[in-house]
Amino acid sequence: MSALVAEVRPGAYYDSVVLMQLQRGLAGLPGVLDAGVVMATPVNLELLAASHLTADVKAGPDDLLLVVRSDNEALGRAALEQVDVLLARRRTAEASEFRPKSLESAARTLLEASWVLISVPGRFAAGVAREALRLGKNVFLYSDNVPAEDEIALKRTAFKEGLLVMGPDCGTAIIGGVGFGFANRVRPGAIGLVAASGTGLQTATSAIHALGGGVSQAIGTGSHDLTVEVGAISTLQGLDVLGRDPATKVIVLISKPPEPGVAGTILAAAQACGKPVVLDLIGLAPGASHLNNLHFATTLEEAARMAVELERTPSARPATALPRARGFLRGLFSGGTLAYESVLALQDVLQPLYTNVPLRESQRLEDPLRSRGHTLLDLGADAFTIGRLHPMIDNDLRLRRLRQELEDPETGVLLLDLVLGEGAHPDPASELAPVIAEAVEKTRHPVVMVVIGTDEDPQGMQGQIERLRSAGAHVYSSLSLALDDVVRRLTPDPPPLPAQVPLGIFSAKPAAINVGLESFYDSLIAQGAAAIHVDWKPPAGGNDRLMRILAKMKAGPAHEAR
Amino acid sequence: MSALVAEVRPGAYYDSVVLMQLQRGLAGLPGVLDAGVVMATPVNLELLAASHLTADVKAGPDDLLLVVRSDNEALGRAALEQVDVLLARRRTAEASEFRPKSLESAARTLLEASWVLISVPGRFAAGVAREALRLGKNVFLYSDNVPAEDEIALKRTAFKEGLLVMGPDCGTAIIGGVGFGFANRVRPGAIGLVAASGTGLQTATSAIHALGGGVSQAIGTGSHDLTVEVGAISTLQGLDVLGRDPATKVIVLISKPPEPGVAGTILAAAQACGKPVVLDLIGLAPGASHLNNLHFATTLEEAARMAVELERTPSARPATALPRARGFLRGLFSGGTLAYESVLALQDVLQPLYTNVPLRESQRLEDPLRSRGHTLLDLGADAFTIGRLHPMIDNDLRLRRLRQELEDPETGVLLLDLVLGEGAHPDPASELAPVIAEAVEKTRHPVVMVVIGTDEDPQGMQGQIERLRSAGAHVYSSLSLALDDVVRRLTPDPPPLPAQVPLGIFSAKPAAINVGLESFYDSLIAQGAAAIHVDWKPPAGGNDRLMRILAKMKAGPAHEAR
Repeated sequence: MSALVAEVRPGAYYDSVVLMQLQRGLAGLPGVLDAGVVMATPVNLELLAASHLTADVKAGPDDLLLVVRSDNEALGRAALEQVDVLLARRRTAEASEFRPKSLESAARTLLEASWVLISVPGRFAAGVAREALRLGKNVFLYSDNVPAEDEIALKRTAFKEGLLVMGPDCGTAIIGGVGFGFANRVRPGAIGLVAASGTGLQTATSAIHALGGGVSQAIGTGSHDLTVEVGAISTLQGLDVLGRDPATKVIVLISKPPEPGVAGTILAAAQACGKPVVLDLIGLAPGASHLNNLHFATTLEEAARMAVELERTPSARPATALPRARGFLRGLFSGGTLAYESVLALQDVLQPLYTNVPLRESQRLEDPLRSRGHTLLDLGADAFTIGRLHPMIDNDLRLRRLRQELEDPETGVLLLDLVLGEGAHPDPASELAPVIAEAVEKTRHPVVMVVIGTDEDPQGMQGQIERLRSAGAHVYSSLSLALDDVVRRLTPDPPPLPAQVPLGIFSAKPAAINVGLESFYDSLIAQGAAAIHVDWKPPAGGNDRLMRILAKMKAGPAHEAR
Repeated sequence: MSALVAEVRPGAYYDSVVLMQLQRGLAGLPGVLDAGVVMATPVNLELLAASHLTADVKAGPDDLLLVVRSDNEALGRAALEQVDVLLARRRTAEASEFRPKSLESAARTLLEASWVLISVPGRFAAGVAREALRLGKNVFLYSDNVPAEDEIALKRTAFKEGLLVMGPDCGTAIIGGVGFGFANRVRPGAIGLVAASGTGLQTATSAIHALGGGVSQAIGTGSHDLTVEVGAISTLQGLDVLGRDPATKVIVLISKPPEPGVAGTILAAAQACGKPVVLDLIGLAPGASHLNNLHFATTLEEAARMAVELERTPSARPATALPRARGFLRGLFSGGTLAYESVLALQDVLQPLYTNVPLRESQRLEDPLRSRGHTLLDLGADAFTIGRLHPMIDNDLRLRRLRQELEDPETGVLLLDLVLGEGAHPDPASELAPVIAEAVEKTRHPVVMVVIGTDEDPQGMQGQIERLRSAGAHVYSSLSLALDDVVRRLTPDPPPLPAQVPLGIFSAKPAAINVGLESFYDSLIAQGAAAIHVDWKPPAGGNDRLMRILAKMKAGPAHEAR
């Protein structure tokens, strides 16, 4: 029979490394079978129980709980008596080097530091980050469990002042060739990355390296950056930086699926950056393999492969702009799946978008007989074909609708498909061309068309295409090219950022101040970066109420008077 | 001022071609400005109104409505008086050829016909299809607006008897080189397609042709086949046929996103078919670019390109099977995005699947401390890291959980990641390997691992991999390869079909009976197929009540007594 003994240290703060080392120290003592040293959160208590380390004591999330399972109770008690010895041993090791006690003092010591790495526990992290911004530093915020309102406030402040906040919950970055937090060593190169996912960034940069490519900068944003509330502030700053960075030729953007409105913002910014952008919005159906300078990947490995290929392909440079069109897109399809694929490809790029083949309920066109905003219509849908031939056979419905769109002052660009083949109209271009010519002459609206067919089809594909081109249509033999054309005419430019993050902070071997996990400081030094580690302790001993009072005093009238 | 005159013919049935020709005939008469000839459904009435053809008459969906806008009322009335003349002219043209009046009589005339093409209006279509199945024929059901319960009944009957029902709402097929309905002329070849989308099938086959590839068979299923209610019957039959067809080397499967349960059924059947399968489940995030013999495309064009490439690459043959494992997958990740990508890739293949990074609410693992079914865990999630180091630095949590999984009799396969690099544990393999070795020795469970890192990482990637391999782990440097391994061990074989569709019906130039649109018959003849057109009229003059009585008499005791 083994014995369990436990001890609670209420309100005590130790950083996670200390807890890990303490647990290992205890587990290594004579007669000790297993040991757990944790902050007593509900999950941690359950985890202890799963390891048969259930302690019959009262402890809350802010209390340190020590549990020892040993051969007998006396050995367990003896082990717990060693706790202070084990902690003191660590403190002696720490004392051998100079450590500033505050961020402010560290900043005075390492004047060239433009970055602060923060990995203190979540509830203290925002305070340290605020201080860093106040000192004009850019922030790598590794800490998780940071309240959303703190993230929003920090990023909004940074956004206005041209400072970058990577995180919270940002595990990885590579800045000027130096890895922050968790980062793989990769060769320098021309691929710049922005990622809302730490492991995503590690996997992609590792794969780029394995494929022989290299990385200019890898900018983390934290996993919450693409929520509507945060509004993708760090992602937009990252895209802007990489767009301006002369060393970056190809950009990779990685995140979990952003919320729809945010996706539009990001795609507009990515389109406007003027470089090829590979997007892996993991789990979001891309709807297209590419859309002009945007290239959509399905996995991190594929994103890496595409980026390396694009960097090696000079022709991958984005196409020149087409004349901008005013008004909305009106797409009149005879092919249902072409309509559906178009909705999929355009839904995050052109908004508001309505359709009778909606992918999201908000896209449903209430009255399919009247267009609104950007409208994509499947004219072969069931409701249209009761007692009427399919629009691939009979053009009447489409021609009438086309005339209706031409009378609508909101129409800007027209998009039509033409599906040839057996069973379809024997000469559709002869009916479509006159109305298209009329549209082009009278309204000057661009008419963009995709023709689906083969050179063996009975209608004669080439002749059909020529007839439509003579009428003034822009005709493509692939839907993705037709959609590229539409997007280049209709995507609005994104608004400029309130302040630009200076490129200087991304220069080789940046200097950084580290607050939190010492191993991150060791890693900076090992990589040849200038760095300083702050001997951080939670303000007011970790007491929340006192902390708030302290924070107010710091940010209060004294600060304003400076 | 122009005048509007209208006429209603209550309960009259004419097929859509007749209506189109009548409308054109009327529009061509002296003094007529525009004409509309439609079944008076609400949508059609609104469409007339949009063309300024609003008729002040009472008419319902089963009534034929004729509206003429003309220079004056007298000319309009004169035009309407021509309706019967115009209709009679058409009947004379029809009479020049022999036309059987019933499907039964057509089947006696063209004995070798194994197909019936049906394009009569939706409410009559199921009756014709039932008759075709009763005669042992396979069905191409072009008609839309067919009730769901009819589709389910038809397909279930066909499934049991080894007959194929393509549709309803099936626009396209290419069988033995002959296009049914709408179909592009493409060269014969080794790519077989199954598609729930007509335009999708047309676009993909046209693109395959343009890329120099060719098509063996293109099987349509109708757009509702992948609903839970229909259960993908035609898709499963199509995959089975193409899997057995010696002319087919690569299979392409196209549909809108199936419902989750159905997706699993299809993916299992596609995996089991023994050939490379390209899937474009349009709008469904694939989660992987490939999974063993399954290759995921984002667009129809990409699906075509992948199929053509796979056909030309002999190495694309599926890998040999791995020993099947019993029990469930237990994935313990330190990298959140690796967990998330794994959920994405496996969610439709391995079920039931639970996780603390759910993509669907049904996947949420209520208690993250206890696995159930297939479980994928992100051990770096916020809940696990309060007062504890991230599992990339501290292996303790993962090792304890690994031991817990080994004690669970439901565990079958273990999946772990290992993320190297700056900031991570200096030698994680030294801690993981002993527990892995124990697992492999004691439980014989396969341990599959993915290692993320580079050859420059401080831990020494190759040494880490070798250490894990010596412990018995199957180690991969890419998540997709690791997931391939897992899937090959765990995917169950799909149940066999109740009856196989014979390959003989797909032989060159099939013979077919056409019921409905005459242009489809013309197209069959033009393609050199043996075909016969039925001079079909709705039973009981289209009266629903009488139709039901007739149908009962036909399928009644007389039929059962045979």
